[in-house]
Amino acid sequence: MLFLVRMDVNIPSHVPPAEADAIKLAEKNYSQELQRSGKWPHIWRVVGEYANYSIFDVESNDELHGLLSGLPLFPYMKIHVTPLAQHPSAI
Amino acid sequence: MLFLVRMDVNIPSHVPPAEADAIKLAEKNYSQELQRSGKWPHIWRVVGEYANYSIFDVESNDELHGLLSGLPLFPYMKIHVTPLAQHPSAI
Amino acid sequence: MLFLVRMDVNIPSHVPPAEADAIKLAEKNYSQELQRSGKWPHIWRVVGEYANYSIFDVESNDELHGLLSGLPLFPYMKIHVTPLAQHPSAI
Amino acid sequence: MLFLVRMDVNIPSHVPPAEADAIKLAEKNYSQELQRSGKWPHIWRVVGEYANYSIFDVESNDELHGLLSGLPLFPYMKIHVTPLAQHPSAI
Amino acid sequence: MLFLVRMDVNIPSHVPPAEADAIKLAEKNYSQELQRSGKWPHIWRVVGEYANYSIFDVESNDELHGLLSGLPLFPYMKIHVTPLAQHPSAI
Amino acid sequence: MLFLVRMDVNIPSHVPPAEADAIKLAEKNYSQELQRSGKWPHIWRVVGEYANYSIFDVESNDELHGLLSGLPLFPYMKIHVTPLAQHPSAI
Amino acid sequence: MLFLVRMDVNIPSHVPPAEADAIKLAEKNYSQELQRSGKWPHIWRVVGEYANYSIFDVESNDELHGLLSGLPLFPYMKIHVTPLAQHPSAI
Amino acid sequence: MLFLVRMDVNIPSHVPPAEADAIKLAEKNYSQELQRSGKWPHIWRVVGEYANYSIFDVESNDELHGLLSGLPLFPYMKIHVTPLAQHPSAI
Amino acid sequence: MLFLVRMDVNIPSHVPPAEADAIKLAEKNYSQELQRSGKWPHIWRVVGEYANYSIFDVESNDELHGLLSGLPLFPYMKIHVTPLAQHPSAI
Amino acid sequence: MLFLVRMDVNIPSHVPPAEADAIKLAEKNYSQELQRSGKWPHIWRVVGEYANYSIFDVESNDELHGLLSGLPLFPYMKIHVTPLAQHPSAI
Repeated sequence: MLFLVRMDVNIPSHVPPAEADAIKLAEKNYSQELQRSGKWPHIWRVVGEYANYSIFDVESNDELHGLLSGLPLFPYMKIHVTPLAQHPSAI
Repeated sequence: MLFLVRMDVNIPSHVPPAEADAIKLAEKNYSQELQRSGKWPHIWRVVGEYANYSIFDVESNDELHGLLSGLPLFPYMKIHVTPLAQHPSAI
Repeated sequence: MLFLVRMDVNIPSHVPPAEADAIKLAEKNYSQELQRSGKWPHIWRVVGEYANYSIFDVESNDELHGLLSGLPLFPYMKIHVTPLAQHPSAI
Repeated sequence: MLFLVRMDVNIPSHVPPAEADAIKLAEKNYSQELQRSGKWPHIWRVVGEYANYSIFDVESNDELHGLLSGLPLFPYMKIHVTPLAQHPSAI
Repeated sequence: MLFLVRMDVNIPSHVPPAEADAIKLAEKNYSQELQRSGKWPHIWRVVGEYANYSIFDVESNDELHGLLSGLPLFPYMKIHVTPLAQHPSAI
Repeated sequence: MLFLVRMDVNIPSHVPPAEADAIKLAEKNYSQELQRSGKWPHIWRVVGEYANYSIFDVESNDELHGLLSGLPLFPYMKIHVTPLAQHPSAI
Repeated sequence: MLFLVRMDVNIPSHVPPAEADAIKLAEKNYSQELQRSGKWPHIWRVVGEYANYSIFDVESNDELHGLLSGLPLFPYMKIHVTPLAQHPSAI
Repeated sequence: MLFLVRMDVNIPSHVPPAEADAIKLAEKNYSQELQRSGKWPHIWRVVGEYANYSIFDVESNDELHGLLSGLPLFPYMKIHVTPLAQHPSAI
Repeated sequence: MLFLVRMDVNIPSHVPPAEADAIKLAEKNYSQELQRSGKWPHIWRVVGEYANYSIFDVESNDELHGLLSGLPLFPYMKIHVTPLAQHPSAI
Repeated sequence: MLFLVRMDVNIPSHVPPAEADAIKLAEKNYSQELQRSGKWPHIWRVVGEYANYSIFDVESNDELHGLLSGLPLFPYMKIHVTPLAQHPSAI
């Protein structure tokens, strides 16, 4: 079951750079593990913005919320989720 | 080069049903040909709406505008394009 | 799997009243059948508006889109879907 | 009398973690007490967001404002209330 | 129980003037009857717009929806309802 | 001459609680004095929000701006003013 | 007492050109009479739009609504009114 | 003196195709004459939309409004103008 | 050449009151000098807001940007500029 | 391949003035180097705002994101990108 997810990142300036770097590294690892598992089949950078559009492939809304709320950057992101369905013209 | 495209369809009521059906059939054929060519790798229905999110893979902005403005439903759609880049965490 | 759905109805004036009444009756029957099946557990009127907020309980995004796009009033509605998850404080 | 309530939580970073945890625990207890009383029959997490949609069942606007403004997280939430009525198609 | 209600009127041009006049007269009578009953204690014109802000005093959300959906101009209005509560500084 | 005024209060966290309490008390006294004078005939709480809708009855725009900018909470409020006129259906 | 007024004109296509011309001529005469009277001291065209920003100088909200609702183009305009006050830095 | 202008075209369906074609041809000629004169140095298509972003180079606001309101498609366009100034980093 | 300019002031709380007062005094002097020169013919307070609408009369976009970016409060203001032209009905 | 880019700058007050000046100088050098290379053919100031509209001429979305995310002011800017295509009326 597919969802389009937009994430806008905004790490506040009071987070020390070393801590920010650690969070970003954890985020990258977390993301790549999910990509490898097939749960997060696509992630694209929005040109010019600290943001991404992603596709998630999950079993349920609860599973998706679990994955998103577990993101190391979750406290610093604005996330919007759009549920997707099979398109009748898709081959 | 990838772009996220959202298309919202609104066929006005004055279009006769037979004409609307013909346009939709032409749209389906046009879309499937582009999907087969690799230019339009993904098309998903937005749940509950007469709309889709699609990914296009083209050589240039001009090529993308040519493909979109050639859609049989183009006169009846609101289209918004977001340019995408490689994400540093993508595997 | 739960979704919050808002539907705003706008039947254009060119639809003859008898046809509009027939569509509304079909809508009511369609809705009540889904309510009885457990797929559409709640429907509430938004005070002062020709609109409703509903809760759907379905197996997948595709099932939800099928149910919504099958609504007799679907061509005359603006629909917005919000996926819901279990809340950690829910009893 | 039913109301749909959306709550978006944003605890500022200057609140010490221990204090934030205490507020969240108080919020959970407060919410569950109201759920048990029947005043707050539904609470759902919005997927991907630190937010919920809830249904309240109260005697009056004043009662609802009293319940909402008494939420331990009230100073840190953006709340929007939509009054609901009986839908003519509801079974 | 008080509600602030904003109503924006837009009678489409295809309604014959005589019919529009009849609807407006019925609206005026309907409104004045509710004003006399105490259910609609205030109605003000928004300066420069074919719109009003009103205060309704009703027993329940259902009663309010019944009153609003019964307005002769209801099919031609956009209505937004805000529930109001006692203010602690009100004398 | 009547105006609808919406005020949204947002006292920043750096204001010490004792100072905030003093400002709120001054605000209450200021408001009640104006209510008694007839300049501020109505004040209602927006359900679920730290906000109010009020009606002011003043001689001029300048008088209204003077009253509003003199509010003890003025530096911490977002205010929006809508001028009102006599409604032709008002009794 | 001054007000800033923005008017956006949109004459629907079903109005016959001769009728539209007559309305525009009446509008011009109506406007110029008010300009000469001092009630409408400024009118400016918004560059690139069929719209104007104007300043009105009236005794009351009711007078302003009377002037605006009497505009021959009133049924075809979207109007927004902002009340203005003396600025402390104005010379 | 430079201005960024966005134009969104929407020719209503009741305009006969031959008339629409004549207007578009007149628009093209009008635009190209201004481009040759140096008044309209840039015009770009917005990808996926029946819209353009343009740069105009004129002597005054009045001249710009004259050029824009003279566009054959002016009655069918939504236009937004942004005044531009020399940027201190421009070479 | 005329422009309508809206300025919304927001001096952050970390600016010491004495410094804020000095900036406001400089702003007043700067504004009054421009008013006397004829470059800033009108400034009005928006009722209920720490904001103004002003009319500027300048030779060019560059001159206007120079005047606005030189405002002592410029770093603490949100400014929006609308170019104005002669209205055909203006007397 | 052309893109219209809007950049709004907002340097937070906690950045020391000397550091802010160094970033702005680096930004100017970075911008001028790209202007000389032909990648950034136009940059214009938005009148009255700490913002610019720019045209970029690049080979790909990835190249554009690389250029924009490398801007010394990138952490302090809100950026929006619009892809542009050849306009059929352009000479």
